[in-house]
Amino acid sequence: MYRRLSMRCGRLGGMTSTQLPIAPTELVACCTPASEVISAEDAEQLARRFKALADPTRVRLLSLIANEQDSEACICYLTHPVGLSQPTVSHHMKQLVEAGLVTREQRGKWAYYRLANDALAALAAAITPAA
Amino acid sequence: MYRRLSMRCGRLGGMTSTQLPIAPTELVACCTPASEVISAEDAEQLARRFKALADPTRVRLLSLIANEQDSEACICYLTHPVGLSQPTVSHHMKQLVEAGLVTREQRGKWAYYRLANDALAALAAAITPAA
Repeated sequence: MYRRLSMRCGRLGGMTSTQLPIAPTELVACCTPASEVISAEDAEQLARRFKALADPTRVRLLSLIANEQDSEACICYLTHPVGLSQPTVSHHMKQLVEAGLVTREQRGKWAYYRLANDALAALAAAITPAA
Repeated sequence: MYRRLSMRCGRLGGMTSTQLPIAPTELVACCTPASEVISAEDAEQLARRFKALADPTRVRLLSLIANEQDSEACICYLTHPVGLSQPTVSHHMKQLVEAGLVTREQRGKWAYYRLANDALAALAAAITPAA
């Protein structure tokens, strides 16, 4: 049905598309070694991005932005639906920006956030059991 | 290019494929309301699954399993590549099992873990900017 889960890193955020082999020097008799396993460094980067998504408020904020035109939303719109103050929402958004999942642009008084579609697609691809 | 990010929940783990609307009673003048935004409950469930992936060791464990035949691996194989004790690896695997991303089967002395492909695909779909 599915091909093997790729766990392959995307092209954004300094990650490469190369899978690094892990070659254990000692193997338990019952098992065979993996031929292609994600590197420790790439695993760190993926985990960092998943951590940014590991909060229900941030998931809702992403969903709110995704439902706006061009997947872009003003901070002034985001505060009310999640029922939090603007500083708190800004803090959540900062974590999403730092993880590379959203970009931020200041326009006059307001900050606007846009989904980083390529980064989100790469993250999704890393856990997609390919057909 | 991409359709809007779906943030839609998959069919596993008690999540539904229905997107619930959020209709704020008060709107900031500069912005328009979202028509389809993930519910608080679904956001909680997605965040819980992302949290299970928010650890580099667990990402590597998933990658190791993905590289085994039929995406299934014996616990005895998983310990050495990640350089951790069996109890520690079992603890990480328990978190992946509880998040519904992996299934566990005891066969005699050893526990075997298999990727929950449908759950992983649903999670990936939730953050995929659809074409």
